[in-house]
Amino acid sequence: MPDLRKDPIVDRWVIVAENRGERPHDFHPTVHGRNDRACPFCEGREEETPPEIAAVRDPGSTPDGKGWRVRVVPNKYPALQIEGTPQRSLEGGCEIIRGVGAHEVIIESAEHLKSTSELSVEQLRDVLWIYRSRLIDLGRDPRLAYGLIFKNVGPAAGASLEHTHSQLLATPILPTNIEQELTGSAAFYRRENQCVYCDMIGRELAGGKRLVLESRLFAAFCPFAGRFPYETWILPKSHCSHFERIEPDAAEDLADVLRRVVIRLETALDRPAYNYFLHTAPFDTPPLEHYHWHIEVMPSLTKAAGFEWGSGCHINPVAPETAAGLLRAAVKII
Amino acid sequence: MPDLRKDPIVDRWVIVAENRGERPHDFHPTVHGRNDRACPFCEGREEETPPEIAAVRDPGSTPDGKGWRVRVVPNKYPALQIEGTPQRSLEGGCEIIRGVGAHEVIIESAEHLKSTSELSVEQLRDVLWIYRSRLIDLGRDPRLAYGLIFKNVGPAAGASLEHTHSQLLATPILPTNIEQELTGSAAFYRRENQCVYCDMIGRELAGGKRLVLESRLFAAFCPFAGRFPYETWILPKSHCSHFERIEPDAAEDLADVLRRVVIRLETALDRPAYNYFLHTAPFDTPPLEHYHWHIEVMPSLTKAAGFEWGSGCHINPVAPETAAGLLRAAVKII
Repeated sequence: MPDLRKDPIVDRWVIVAENRGERPHDFHPTVHGRNDRACPFCEGREEETPPEIAAVRDPGSTPDGKGWRVRVVPNKYPALQIEGTPQRSLEGGCEIIRGVGAHEVIIESAEHLKSTSELSVEQLRDVLWIYRSRLIDLGRDPRLAYGLIFKNVGPAAGASLEHTHSQLLATPILPTNIEQELTGSAAFYRRENQCVYCDMIGRELAGGKRLVLESRLFAAFCPFAGRFPYETWILPKSHCSHFERIEPDAAEDLADVLRRVVIRLETALDRPAYNYFLHTAPFDTPPLEHYHWHIEVMPSLTKAAGFEWGSGCHINPVAPETAAGLLRAAVKII
Repeated sequence: MPDLRKDPIVDRWVIVAENRGERPHDFHPTVHGRNDRACPFCEGREEETPPEIAAVRDPGSTPDGKGWRVRVVPNKYPALQIEGTPQRSLEGGCEIIRGVGAHEVIIESAEHLKSTSELSVEQLRDVLWIYRSRLIDLGRDPRLAYGLIFKNVGPAAGASLEHTHSQLLATPILPTNIEQELTGSAAFYRRENQCVYCDMIGRELAGGKRLVLESRLFAAFCPFAGRFPYETWILPKSHCSHFERIEPDAAEDLADVLRRVVIRLETALDRPAYNYFLHTAPFDTPPLEHYHWHIEVMPSLTKAAGFEWGSGCHINPVAPETAAGLLRAAVKII
């Protein structure tokens, strides 16, 4: 059974999950399933994954059979386990919680595609819509505090399977970064009587130098203090704390924006490995005036080393203004 | 000129240093100077580095000539620049500081050695002693708040040169992680009337299951909530907040302990890439009851990906108890 441990000095949770050592790629991820004949995520190989939790399917098709467009399955090597209660205890004065949670894989396409950029807007809209329904469903589980959706593309970004997919890891604790964003944004709200994210969006749209693109409902920009070169955030222009409250037309607009951001990154940087993740408000919270859901996209170009791990500060070798300029210019010539 | 930017939501500093893009290994570090004929850090090639700042030298030898055992030079591609004043300003409500600081390289051997494990205890003691004198010297500069010493070994740990060396990056701000350790340890002290690190050392020495080794003055153990597999911390057994106050006999004892820890990691894990860094109290602080200097050593076996960057939580696939057991057993058979 995995466990969650809290560092007694700083408020940092760690998941200790020894069972993951069983994975063949273990410490040094190599990519498995490089083609659709060997890939467990391709249509027709549904028996190679655990039974599906949810799917977008053709009418008349049956669960774990063919005829799907998006499919959600439990992670075969889960970092947390779905059974049991997340009991808290102390070990030598240190907090420890049984490693209960959900670890799901969202297979984003029946075909062996490799990146968000290869999905159609409609397909990506369906993926985003299933993010929403999985968060709503897991949010009803009183054992869980938060659901983090993230995506790894390419071995340098930690992916161990090539077939385009994202993951959802729902935890009985609030992840460190979410807690810090909630605390920081609440402090800003008390001070300025405004959402800090709304403030940023207003400035970026007005200033323009860090803006990557804008749609009817969303803005994408390289943040002022981005940790990674070409880091790009996507936010709804209207204030909203919970991604789960997204409407169908906004999901379609977001799909278009996310796809265009990834295409620009891939054009400017020659198809880099990348990650994205979704930050939304914790489960079981009312609408929050001070928090604003968003997606952070980050190509894996640099490597955290001794300075970054020791300081918690990153060295970004490309100013966000430079990155945004290059991304604005990165329109594929076909 | 680089700059330091503070994220307006969370208290996170980022160094934006565009000049570092000039480095040939830029985004994808490859190791240069793979042998002593091509290595700018080897004895006899002193003209390939900027002029030395400090050195441990044979009597009668001259700066930037042969006859040294440890040599400190400015980093040729500094993340921060030594000239100027770290002026603070606001850009669109966000804090920005001119990127003033010191970025030095400590060349740990005249010979082309590749790891701390290859240094003699006496040689490593001299390296630790020069860490001390560089921190004392830079601590006198009123523009600087903190000096972080760190080491990268192997490309997977971010090293771009093979010849064994460490770095010192002194900043006009307190790095995020240090600020969190100071805040967290101060809170523990108020609550428990004891240093949290002294408490940990006592428990680890008494319990034994996470202990790696112990010397007269130091304890090395895998911390309860370690982020990385085989992460090992080394702490003085007697309370002390400032590494700079180390005595010569303790420096020799520490050299022996650090060397043995690295040898055990290399034996257990087949010479992995690794990082270590030194956490000490900020410049210009009196002795602190609640803070305790230490070294954190971490082999680069896993990769931070979407979940880790999104949550701030790490997944450690090897329990610290398991890691410590394997490190205790990892005695080289010669």
